[in-house]
Amino acid sequence: MTRSHWAWGPEPDASGLREIARLFTEATGLGEPTAWEPPALFSPALLPAPLIPVPPLPCCTDDPYERAVRTYGQAYRDLIRAYRGDFANAPDLVALPRDEDEVTQVLEWAAAQGVPVVPRGGGTSVVGGVEARFDGPSLCLDLSRMNRVLEVDVVSRAALVEAGASGPAVNDGLPDGLQLRFFPQSYEFSTVGGWIATRAGGHFATFHTHIDDLVESVRAISPAGVWESRRLPGSGAGPSPDRWLLGSEGALGVITRAWLRVHERPTHKVSVPVRFAEWPAAVAAVHDLAQSGLYPSNCRLLDAREAALTSGGDGRHAVLIVGFESADHPVDAWVSRALEIVGAHGGVAGESRQDQAWKGSFTRMPYVRNAYPGMGVLAETVETAVTWDRFPALHEAVMAAMAEEAGTATCRLAYAYPDGPAPYYTILAPAVKGAEVEQWDGLKQRVSDVVLRMGGTITHHHAVGRDHRPYYDRQRPDPFALALRAAKAALDPGGILNPGVLI
Amino acid sequence: MTRSHWAWGPEPDASGLREIARLFTEATGLGEPTAWEPPALFSPALLPAPLIPVPPLPCCTDDPYERAVRTYGQAYRDLIRAYRGDFANAPDLVALPRDEDEVTQVLEWAAAQGVPVVPRGGGTSVVGGVEARFDGPSLCLDLSRMNRVLEVDVVSRAALVEAGASGPAVNDGLPDGLQLRFFPQSYEFSTVGGWIATRAGGHFATFHTHIDDLVESVRAISPAGVWESRRLPGSGAGPSPDRWLLGSEGALGVITRAWLRVHERPTHKVSVPVRFAEWPAAVAAVHDLAQSGLYPSNCRLLDAREAALTSGGDGRHAVLIVGFESADHPVDAWVSRALEIVGAHGGVAGESRQDQAWKGSFTRMPYVRNAYPGMGVLAETVETAVTWDRFPALHEAVMAAMAEEAGTATCRLAYAYPDGPAPYYTILAPAVKGAEVEQWDGLKQRVSDVVLRMGGTITHHHAVGRDHRPYYDRQRPDPFALALRAAKAALDPGGILNPGVLI
Repeated sequence: MTRSHWAWGPEPDASGLREIARLFTEATGLGEPTAWEPPALFSPALLPAPLIPVPPLPCCTDDPYERAVRTYGQAYRDLIRAYRGDFANAPDLVALPRDEDEVTQVLEWAAAQGVPVVPRGGGTSVVGGVEARFDGPSLCLDLSRMNRVLEVDVVSRAALVEAGASGPAVNDGLPDGLQLRFFPQSYEFSTVGGWIATRAGGHFATFHTHIDDLVESVRAISPAGVWESRRLPGSGAGPSPDRWLLGSEGALGVITRAWLRVHERPTHKVSVPVRFAEWPAAVAAVHDLAQSGLYPSNCRLLDAREAALTSGGDGRHAVLIVGFESADHPVDAWVSRALEIVGAHGGVAGESRQDQAWKGSFTRMPYVRNAYPGMGVLAETVETAVTWDRFPALHEAVMAAMAEEAGTATCRLAYAYPDGPAPYYTILAPAVKGAEVEQWDGLKQRVSDVVLRMGGTITHHHAVGRDHRPYYDRQRPDPFALALRAAKAALDPGGILNPGVLI
Repeated sequence: MTRSHWAWGPEPDASGLREIARLFTEATGLGEPTAWEPPALFSPALLPAPLIPVPPLPCCTDDPYERAVRTYGQAYRDLIRAYRGDFANAPDLVALPRDEDEVTQVLEWAAAQGVPVVPRGGGTSVVGGVEARFDGPSLCLDLSRMNRVLEVDVVSRAALVEAGASGPAVNDGLPDGLQLRFFPQSYEFSTVGGWIATRAGGHFATFHTHIDDLVESVRAISPAGVWESRRLPGSGAGPSPDRWLLGSEGALGVITRAWLRVHERPTHKVSVPVRFAEWPAAVAAVHDLAQSGLYPSNCRLLDAREAALTSGGDGRHAVLIVGFESADHPVDAWVSRALEIVGAHGGVAGESRQDQAWKGSFTRMPYVRNAYPGMGVLAETVETAVTWDRFPALHEAVMAAMAEEAGTATCRLAYAYPDGPAPYYTILAPAVKGAEVEQWDGLKQRVSDVVLRMGGTITHHHAVGRDHRPYYDRQRPDPFALALRAAKAALDPGGILNPGVLI
């Protein structure tokens, strides 16, 4: 598939997009499908001339289209710029290595030339993690050709996978009956290396929430050499090397492969929607469920507005989707107790079923977003995690900050831990034509300030990138920043690895 | 309680020790209780004169007894030297700060004087983590006076605890009904700060195995300032600062307090002993149980010899203890399915009960060890973790290496992960009188070489310290060591923090 220079997926059909816009406006009252603005057609003239010649490496190119499709991630901030044909920050070069030798060659060339390298997997960052937002030349190191499952250990249930493998590539490469069970919203394009570099959040709403929990070992290439940890189910030998790479966002090394823990495909699955008339009661139910020790695979609470938009809710009830899955045993005992717990808070269980409505909407969402720029809708999502004692005040403050923007703001609890939830906020608002980036930046700043002030983290699973950087700098301990900077300088003395993220 | 200068706990009663020796010999055939060697009596003359004067800080002392009891950890290697009155490596000074200000003052003084600081909690390291095994003066920074539970958040079920709090101090400081549920064998003396610094292993045989999983945030003081992470149930903001301190063994900073996730005291508890005639079948049962998604709180497999020594086993059957606990729901469904799984491998379930025999033996063990030097028994424990595919070969090789020593070698699977077990080996052998340290070092080297060669980690939960250091250096990725060294240099430019561990 040739990916669009601006959209999620292949170049969208124009009439299809306008139909999405019409339906969206019907459902939300937002957007102006009649004043439709078409996307800028691709032209090589949209791109600045490369600042450096192509190096004598077979995997490198300066083809304008290849540069254009790798200019941005998938934030609305990115979407609107690509839509308008703004590729000012395009990388000068794109490298598409097929193996680790080619990765090493690219890094050696870049270190010698002092050219910054931005590693890229599926390019689905929504935080500016893959944008060469700095002066001077840059190279995009795209791992997508390194996308194989190299080895499977069925006894230990683990698989060695190349970093450029997307969600479908991982699961297609596993033997029948095994799955990674990691389904972020970006599943179709995002990659193993990207998940690890950003500490992505996946399928499970409790327990194995982040990719961190599924990583058995990581291999990365830095200018200082190959960093490969031992395959181990657990260890107490010093600080975990894998945990240094998890969340390193390309700043410490280029992740090339990893051993991941895989699962048997579940044969027992139950999912029950539970309706609540009141949001606080629904939150209390999730709190109790999160502390019950039942660890449901799904435990996602949609507020009334989000349930109406994405799951056919009635607009008056919050909906909690409680799910259990197992390849080993029926989950009835788990489901029964979970429904008792949420029932004690007034939750009314619907018919147990596969939650296709929500899941379908979840995976379709990136395609719906393609229609936003044309119809004049601005979108932003804010996600965090916070302890239960602080959640009510944080929730109120974030909703208030989002309400300063005209439009509609919704919340879901995406993950639930014993000590706190990870709420996920979505705002959809009329775009200020021509000033969308400034509008988005203002919104980001207002809400991020609130999140930090109220005790949350600047990101639970979207990563830091360049958009969250100022807030991350306020969140992290100062001596940790000092240590991280020193570690990076030792691994990457030329400072070529994704400059601007983290440090 | 005044702790003995050599033994676990207070100074043991001489006749009691000899009675333990007699019973031990009766049970194992090991040891010579008739040729009893008494411990060296404490005398200030056993200690070298301090190399530096006491600094003008009220929390510091050079009292010989205070120095003697803080010379070693609790490895057999330590026990035998203290028993014989060898305190050559005693710290020159002991600091017993009451608060963070005093910790800071000590670090400032030490940095100015260039005096190495060895942080110490309960002093229960079995890997030389708390021994000043280097030339020149040294200071032992003992956190044991900082031992309070400072704050409890019952809504989020978390508690802020000072680093010097021991297991009992943590639980005694929690409100009724809340417990940490973290019970290492060293529970009575080991501390929160020590657990975090060494990535200690606790109560749960699956799921929350290490203290890592119970840590919500950490506060540490380094020469570069205070490192304090935000209290968060989960985060994806860069590499986890807490994971840098977990396993840092005092080399990056002095941990002073932490927010820990606590549990409700379980009201439903079931524990079932399951007997297996064959070890491989028992291992296969643990494998399947570990991959079932049931996550038993206890899942400890004792080989026939260990079961006989510690749990009244018949010496012919391996015994698997399967336990579930919950404060929320009866665990019958969990137990039933677990027994089906292990039954399919020929496991025969005994009567369900509290496993008092094993638990009693587990917590009494350090007191039994007190008798080893006097009766001429050498003891060593080796623990690791390895993926399931490699476990049978590793097990065979480790048992063979231990069999080179006369005596008895046993194995238990202490923890079980979906992708591999954490086996724990114990060897008890006749000591070579006067050369016990060399004997122990030789054994450590032989077995550690095997563990590394067969794909294990040099430690699953005992930490690296100084005894595992050569093997750790072979295990860790080289670029990681480079990064860790640079991080330490940035935080601790004078290199005063526990030199010799990790880097």
